[in-house]
Amino acid sequence: MPHFSRLSKIVIDAPAESHDAELAFWRDALGVTLVNFERFPEYHGGDLPGGFGLLTQVLGEGAPRVHLDIHTTDRAAEVARLQRLGATLVDDGEHWAIMRDPAGLVFCVIPDRRLDASNATEWPD
Amino acid sequence: MPHFSRLSKIVIDAPAESHDAELAFWRDALGVTLVNFERFPEYHGGDLPGGFGLLTQVLGEGAPRVHLDIHTTDRAAEVARLQRLGATLVDDGEHWAIMRDPAGLVFCVIPDRRLDASNATEWPD
Repeated sequence: MPHFSRLSKIVIDAPAESHDAELAFWRDALGVTLVNFERFPEYHGGDLPGGFGLLTQVLGEGAPRVHLDIHTTDRAAEVARLQRLGATLVDDGEHWAIMRDPAGLVFCVIPDRRLDASNATEWPD
Repeated sequence: MPHFSRLSKIVIDAPAESHDAELAFWRDALGVTLVNFERFPEYHGGDLPGGFGLLTQVLGEGAPRVHLDIHTTDRAAEVARLQRLGATLVDDGEHWAIMRDPAGLVFCVIPDRRLDASNATEWPD
């Protein structure tokens, strides 16, 4: 069965000591309201145009970075498709998959039932 | 005079040795056509929904990363606004300004005359 995916989120990852400054800076720089996620309290998020979203994440370890999230209607099929394109599966987690692109940049693949032909790209399986 | 700005570009920065693999991966992962910029040949770019764009850049030095570009109708006023929010000006270049956010992440501020109240945020000066 075909599935859909799209680039959906831009994530600002920051260590605990700089997270609140990052959250305030990007909120005010872009004029976007960033709300804490009750279920995943390390994240704050808000809407950008075109179905995109901005997130901040408190990093447990590692340096600040920007990472991208691909949303999809079929996580397993999308992970397999991206592996065929040269990505590596780092962590097949409970809620999302963490992958690395060919240069080693981390990105995530996240289930999203709201995607269809009106707002995402269809991929044959 | 008020000015306008918005988050416009997501840039995949890759060293020369991994750039072509990155270009091919993100082109095929997102299904976006990425065209080489004649004036700035280290960049390839294409359109995403909502007025966003994806770019790849061949990095002269440094590790792979994702960085963000803010476009604006008034570069000097936008740089000053972002400095007041806690960003640092790294390089006030000929074509764009390179800045760092409070955690040290690099981002750029780029002049763009196409922005107005229909597609960007208005900031009083």
